[in-house]
Amino acid sequence: QSTAAIPKTQKGVIFYENKGKLHYKDIPVPEPKPNEILINVKYSGVCHTDLHAWHGDWPLPVKLPLVGGHEGAGVVVKLGSNVKGWKVGDLAGIKWLNGSCMTCEFCESGHESNCPDADLSGYTHDGSFQQFATADAIQAAKIQQGTDLAEVAPILCAGVTVYKALKEADLKAGDWVAISGAAGGLGSLAVQYATAMGYRVLGIDAGEEKEKLFKKLGGEVFIDFTKTKNMVSDIQEATKGGPHGVINVSVSEAAISLSTEYVRPCGTVVLVGLPANAYVKSEVFSHVVKSINIKGSYVGNRADTREALDFFSRGLIKSPIKIVGLSELPKVYDLMEKGKILGRYVVDTSK
Amino acid sequence: QSTAAIPKTQKGVIFYENKGKLHYKDIPVPEPKPNEILINVKYSGVCHTDLHAWHGDWPLPVKLPLVGGHEGAGVVVKLGSNVKGWKVGDLAGIKWLNGSCMTCEFCESGHESNCPDADLSGYTHDGSFQQFATADAIQAAKIQQGTDLAEVAPILCAGVTVYKALKEADLKAGDWVAISGAAGGLGSLAVQYATAMGYRVLGIDAGEEKEKLFKKLGGEVFIDFTKTKNMVSDIQEATKGGPHGVINVSVSEAAISLSTEYVRPCGTVVLVGLPANAYVKSEVFSHVVKSINIKGSYVGNRADTREALDFFSRGLIKSPIKIVGLSELPKVYDLMEKGKILGRYVVDTSK
Amino acid sequence: QSTAAIPKTQKGVIFYENKGKLHYKDIPVPEPKPNEILINVKYSGVCHTDLHAWHGDWPLPVKLPLVGGHEGAGVVVKLGSNVKGWKVGDLAGIKWLNGSCMTCEFCESGHESNCPDADLSGYTHDGSFQQFATADAIQAAKIQQGTDLAEVAPILCAGVTVYKALKEADLKAGDWVAISGAAGGLGSLAVQYATAMGYRVLGIDAGEEKEKLFKKLGGEVFIDFTKTKNMVSDIQEATKGGPHGVINVSVSEAAISLSTEYVRPCGTVVLVGLPANAYVKSEVFSHVVKSINIKGSYVGNRADTREALDFFSRGLIKSPIKIVGLSELPKVYDLMEKGKILGRYVVDTSK
Amino acid sequence: QSTAAIPKTQKGVIFYENKGKLHYKDIPVPEPKPNEILINVKYSGVCHTDLHAWHGDWPLPVKLPLVGGHEGAGVVVKLGSNVKGWKVGDLAGIKWLNGSCMTCEFCESGHESNCPDADLSGYTHDGSFQQFATADAIQAAKIQQGTDLAEVAPILCAGVTVYKALKEADLKAGDWVAISGAAGGLGSLAVQYATAMGYRVLGIDAGEEKEKLFKKLGGEVFIDFTKTKNMVSDIQEATKGGPHGVINVSVSEAAISLSTEYVRPCGTVVLVGLPANAYVKSEVFSHVVKSINIKGSYVGNRADTREALDFFSRGLIKSPIKIVGLSELPKVYDLMEKGKILGRYVVDTSK
Repeated sequence: QSTAAIPKTQKGVIFYENKGKLHYKDIPVPEPKPNEILINVKYSGVCHTDLHAWHGDWPLPVKLPLVGGHEGAGVVVKLGSNVKGWKVGDLAGIKWLNGSCMTCEFCESGHESNCPDADLSGYTHDGSFQQFATADAIQAAKIQQGTDLAEVAPILCAGVTVYKALKEADLKAGDWVAISGAAGGLGSLAVQYATAMGYRVLGIDAGEEKEKLFKKLGGEVFIDFTKTKNMVSDIQEATKGGPHGVINVSVSEAAISLSTEYVRPCGTVVLVGLPANAYVKSEVFSHVVKSINIKGSYVGNRADTREALDFFSRGLIKSPIKIVGLSELPKVYDLMEKGKILGRYVVDTSK
Repeated sequence: QSTAAIPKTQKGVIFYENKGKLHYKDIPVPEPKPNEILINVKYSGVCHTDLHAWHGDWPLPVKLPLVGGHEGAGVVVKLGSNVKGWKVGDLAGIKWLNGSCMTCEFCESGHESNCPDADLSGYTHDGSFQQFATADAIQAAKIQQGTDLAEVAPILCAGVTVYKALKEADLKAGDWVAISGAAGGLGSLAVQYATAMGYRVLGIDAGEEKEKLFKKLGGEVFIDFTKTKNMVSDIQEATKGGPHGVINVSVSEAAISLSTEYVRPCGTVVLVGLPANAYVKSEVFSHVVKSINIKGSYVGNRADTREALDFFSRGLIKSPIKIVGLSELPKVYDLMEKGKILGRYVVDTSK
Repeated sequence: QSTAAIPKTQKGVIFYENKGKLHYKDIPVPEPKPNEILINVKYSGVCHTDLHAWHGDWPLPVKLPLVGGHEGAGVVVKLGSNVKGWKVGDLAGIKWLNGSCMTCEFCESGHESNCPDADLSGYTHDGSFQQFATADAIQAAKIQQGTDLAEVAPILCAGVTVYKALKEADLKAGDWVAISGAAGGLGSLAVQYATAMGYRVLGIDAGEEKEKLFKKLGGEVFIDFTKTKNMVSDIQEATKGGPHGVINVSVSEAAISLSTEYVRPCGTVVLVGLPANAYVKSEVFSHVVKSINIKGSYVGNRADTREALDFFSRGLIKSPIKIVGLSELPKVYDLMEKGKILGRYVVDTSK
Repeated sequence: QSTAAIPKTQKGVIFYENKGKLHYKDIPVPEPKPNEILINVKYSGVCHTDLHAWHGDWPLPVKLPLVGGHEGAGVVVKLGSNVKGWKVGDLAGIKWLNGSCMTCEFCESGHESNCPDADLSGYTHDGSFQQFATADAIQAAKIQQGTDLAEVAPILCAGVTVYKALKEADLKAGDWVAISGAAGGLGSLAVQYATAMGYRVLGIDAGEEKEKLFKKLGGEVFIDFTKTKNMVSDIQEATKGGPHGVINVSVSEAAISLSTEYVRPCGTVVLVGLPANAYVKSEVFSHVVKSINIKGSYVGNRADTREALDFFSRGLIKSPIKIVGLSELPKVYDLMEKGKILGRYVVDTSK
């Protein structure tokens, strides 16, 4: 524990009330509890959920004051007194699930994100929009030495989330998977994971730019929802009967319900995107007679995280990012609110 | 093939147009195709689907004229030229799936009921409301010698359907399963199968009569939907967090959607009942964060049928039935239309 | 933390070298680490593995000096500084896996017992043959209030182990499972779990006494290996084609290999018992053409433990035990060495 | 049914006793039963099993006289009276399983190859070493129009067999799989399927030629068993803990048993190759403590066949073949007996 090298205070972005001012200022460096590690965060991805947390959009209240961020990649600088399996100098990642009780029925069976006592980075636990942040040693993600910490940051949430959703779809190599919102931040990662897992990928999005990106990432069939006359029949024709799985990363309520119509009989619709106050509606008669499946998929557990990172370290997943200084976080939120985000923004905590 | 003993004509109930007159009359005995067996049907259960077929309620048109019925139990009297695995004198059952193509992706993977060329007894293939009926030798159900053919009849569709739904819920012995519509024809069978499979059973229905029947059949906790103030919290409290699985056999659209609220996180809602033009609605945010599952379950395949019958032959499943003559079928439909059916009606084809 | 009530020293049985003297003496009460709980052990089962640990039979060396025992049931008296999910006064169980790293690929995917850093009670961590023992708060088993601590003790290892083995056999309710060594300590628990899980149970053991016990516990078919002329054909006949699963709890090398012959095609042989230097031999040609499966099953994880205990608390599992004072542990080992143990010995740490 | 175009007699290779003369002569064209299709076989792979059938090596006696061959690809020329899902002119494949009862517990659950009444091409049913052969319409493989019938032939048995074995290993994309016998006929197909399924492939074989072929086909790590000092530690080091799955296509008893040592804890050893009178031996203690799995995998079912063919039609699987005339079959057997076969021989039935 080279405690000498760790400063007392650090730069971070903190807010004191929902939608209140985002202060880029000096704040204390937290002390790791016995089961936590202290990470010198170098880079952090900026995710829509961070915006929801700042806004206070969701039923679950945030901790106030709060430092947001849950895609932090950095270097371990200090270990709590009771930590096993880590050493100072390791590369570590902070993800949405900062910690959990590890003793409830969900934690015991690999569903840690469903733990009633889930502690969430950048929501109920100060997150990665600061230079030094803590994480439960059990939940913190192990990142291979030599990994580019800016590029790996978005994998820690967006990457893990779409990879887990693909696993939940319970597909076989050679099956068709449709990615609804195929060229967005999550979608572009989903296409790459699906291809690496041996699936045939149909992408749904709009515009030539996005079609080009989709095909470059390994996608096979692109459906432009602004041009198709009949989305259901176009998709079923392209996949000879409908995709075996559908990953809904878009936040359109209509798109989600439509996926229950074009999914293949015995296929699985996976819900990932969280449009506010939205309902998925599925016609009972065909839901039964087609024996389809609608599954919610929520981030991923520790094994999902390790596997998702492994694909990245093997060079199979590229995460197109734009790096700005931590101090410019308010500008990133502003772009997000105006829907002008292309790809993923990553903040450099040293600026 | 003791063709001599088989008459040319037989008694059956036939109709020539939807909602048209139900003729109890002499009709020809069908000739089995090379892959079919001819069954002297002794008894047949009467299922709501038969009523829908006579009414013409569903999108898929019925064969006209049509002999209804898809829960027929009887004796094999003749084998098609190409039949394997059967001999005259065997006991056989006719179920909803009379035959399928056996070569499409669904037939190849045990999802025969989803075969685009599914041939349906009492819908697209003359069914069991006659003394002699044909069935594809591959799909016909093998019934153990010595089985009571009147009591086994409802197992062939109602029993298989709820047993398959319980398997689709992917539960472990010791898990909680809620049966929505626990004391009806399907529900009372579901409770018995669930108990025999080692699950803890919560029943949802109304009235003391039904509660008594439910507890007698092995149910543990009964929720009367006409008395509970807050169904969701009552159910979650009784099961310490919600049932791991919910089997919706009731035909109430509201009850189906409500089950997405009280199911346990990471649990599975199974849709079985087919209310007309109904939609299951699930709130996307909690569907994802609770990682729940909504699955359609449609009758069962051949292995499900054999297993469901095995539970019955081992005396673990009782199917309370009322036997009437085949000639009284119109009266049974009348009771059904007035919702006055308690338990299952079985017709004796000899009367 | 009512530290005042906790004494400095306690009674325990300790040895300083393999097969050395078993000292029943005053030893210090251990201090719980930040992630541990301190349990006032009331009762502890005595398992064959304890004998192997004292003898030093296995490749993995034991900690010396060592307090044995890994089926300890008692009351939480003190919490480490970093413990979540426990409070003083809770009932807790100490099982074979005392703790693990929780961050390796095995811990992340519910295979904690395969963790390379597994810390084993009564082997590498002083166990339950003492009045106060420590356990990692994540691994310690939660026991319902009101549970009989003497009777639950054997569930913590023997019960969990056979329950997990039954899960590994991947059976359906209604399938046949053969328990090889059906009336011993592990076997008698396996029969009860199998019955509660809805399986049909064939038991293999010897003698009328054991047959009576087996049938009383719910077993259906008993095969006496000292009387049968042809074990393979008797078993295959009784189960109409062979058991779908076989649980080898006996420590006979020959019995283990024989199970690969009578298991049903596509069935699963599960290895639990650990005869020293033994090999399972399976003929490759029939292993392939019958597509059978040989799986090793090693204790259980936290979810298995909670589920196994739940069956016990619901009164579905009886564990016939003989209670003696902790001071008489040497006598129990002596009986074990002479193979004279019937049922399970449990030591009362207060005597 | 263009019966006019079908000749009465045809060229085929037939033998009248095990190891007896292989007659290339005129033999009658078989008449398809009601459930069979008649296929004008253009090409057929030659598999080791054909040699075993001619020799009479295996416990199960062959039909005599016999036309061997079970990798036949050709054109449907006639349909039995009761065939669904086929038309004259379709491309069809004859595989090891020519037909099965379709009504036993194995056929009902997708384990058709384990059917006690399995009818085997080139073993109990005249196979594909003739210009016209019959196959059960349900089991015959559907081949896409435009497929190269010579190149697809080996997929029908070798391809399906290794693809099914990879599925049995129950792996995730990103897992390591070891192919024991990686550069032989089966092995070279296994490497390609494994890569297309997203697995990381370690190959075990001998010689630089084979290493080059292995790497060309997508393999990542090659272990030359003639050069390695310690196979187990080399393999475990290369895969950081051992392969998650091992596919034993080699016919070496020692190699099979060794795989139980280097497989990863919780991993699966799959047996495919059939060395005569061989036993797989696994040390019980580590089999349990490492919780490993030994599975037999026997050809594949209809869904496995369709999927394996789909990978081929998408150009992901190349099957290096040598085409000779059907009349030269004796020479191919001779090369096989001398172990001089490299890649797969395919016979052209027109020569």
